[in-house]
Amino acid sequence: MNLEVCFSPAFYNLYQNPNAATVVVDVFRATTAICTAFDYGVKSIIPVTTLEEAQFYQDQGYLIAAERNGIKPDFADFGNSPFNFMQEGLEGKTIVYSTTNGTQAIQMAGASGHTVIGAFINISAVAEYLTTLNKDVIILCAGWKDRFSLEDAICSGALATKLLESGAFTSTCDSVTASIDLWRIASMNLMEYHRKFAHTHRLKNLMLDDVIEFCLSPDQTRTVPLYRNGVITDYRNL
Amino acid sequence: MNLEVCFSPAFYNLYQNPNAATVVVDVFRATTAICTAFDYGVKSIIPVTTLEEAQFYQDQGYLIAAERNGIKPDFADFGNSPFNFMQEGLEGKTIVYSTTNGTQAIQMAGASGHTVIGAFINISAVAEYLTTLNKDVIILCAGWKDRFSLEDAICSGALATKLLESGAFTSTCDSVTASIDLWRIASMNLMEYHRKFAHTHRLKNLMLDDVIEFCLSPDQTRTVPLYRNGVITDYRNL
Repeated sequence: MNLEVCFSPAFYNLYQNPNAATVVVDVFRATTAICTAFDYGVKSIIPVTTLEEAQFYQDQGYLIAAERNGIKPDFADFGNSPFNFMQEGLEGKTIVYSTTNGTQAIQMAGASGHTVIGAFINISAVAEYLTTLNKDVIILCAGWKDRFSLEDAICSGALATKLLESGAFTSTCDSVTASIDLWRIASMNLMEYHRKFAHTHRLKNLMLDDVIEFCLSPDQTRTVPLYRNGVITDYRNL
Repeated sequence: MNLEVCFSPAFYNLYQNPNAATVVVDVFRATTAICTAFDYGVKSIIPVTTLEEAQFYQDQGYLIAAERNGIKPDFADFGNSPFNFMQEGLEGKTIVYSTTNGTQAIQMAGASGHTVIGAFINISAVAEYLTTLNKDVIILCAGWKDRFSLEDAICSGALATKLLESGAFTSTCDSVTASIDLWRIASMNLMEYHRKFAHTHRLKNLMLDDVIEFCLSPDQTRTVPLYRNGVITDYRNL
């Protein structure tokens, strides 16, 4: 099967492929937080684009997770930190979720068919799931406001490395090559390398950087969240 | 001054900055060929988007360089290879130029003000010119049909390295960091590394790969082509 990496939602339209699964990656922090929520028993997550939609769902009794430019709006129950979801009492709940980049990329990818939520914390589970699918794979980096993000690129490189090593995938895509080379450099000392990320500095300025080490830690969970018909659920529960 | 790299014309609109100069990079082969043409005495180059425009100019007696998907259309006088312009008799001529990616990126950048043509073969001359400008710099990779191209990314990384080392520029842009890291890897053995490029394989399949080594050779010329008011001229002649 063919493997591609798309560095920004701004040109995801160039990668349309009806036989592909798309893995959305937003390491800091949406896809990491979504995986964490499933690990703490959440039943389903509904991504929405606007805060107005989120408030509409809140009026109907849903729990709301939301973030804009890193910050949780006052009305939301949770922000965008994976730590927000590490708590008792979430079993069986549905959460409505809206973020600056991640949820919008998920909805965009959802329009094209099979959509998977990827992060460092579930990277091996996602790689193993993808090798069973018999589909081409596009890794879509959520980026930052449609720009290239280094943390999403290196996570794509780590996932691409696993997929190519499985023998089930091949690639002639320059973004795959670049992301693998960037991952090779970053993985030599990831806890140092992240200081180069623009988003590390954004999170630090907002005093939200406590999550960085967790977000960069591979294989904290076996969850494989799938986005289908407007709702994200855990593949393990299907 | 601030330095940014934009990996695709598809999201160049996100980088609008009225105080910036934009360097357009299309290593294989448009910007390398443009630099070569000036080195052989061409007076000016008019980039046009469509082949119909190029034919319109031909009817008025202009020389035409053109390429689509690597191949020279029959009606054109030159293709997109820098070797096409290594000949006597070009002194003082004006050439109308239309390619798949490069000339379109040049026109797009031109709308925003100060536009410079960059390639490996004029990289030091461009870097020195930019440090005299007192302007922010955006390096725009022409890419391949709006996708990320590794050869343009590493050329951006080589240029970004020079600009940051000059002390005149700073950057917090993830694309700058990524391109510099990719250049570090590539520069260890550039004549091997290019085998990874998707475009190397495209050129090889068309038997157009004789130009690769030249396109990747830094500092073959001191030309600094500038695009202003619809025409590219050599800064040295202004």
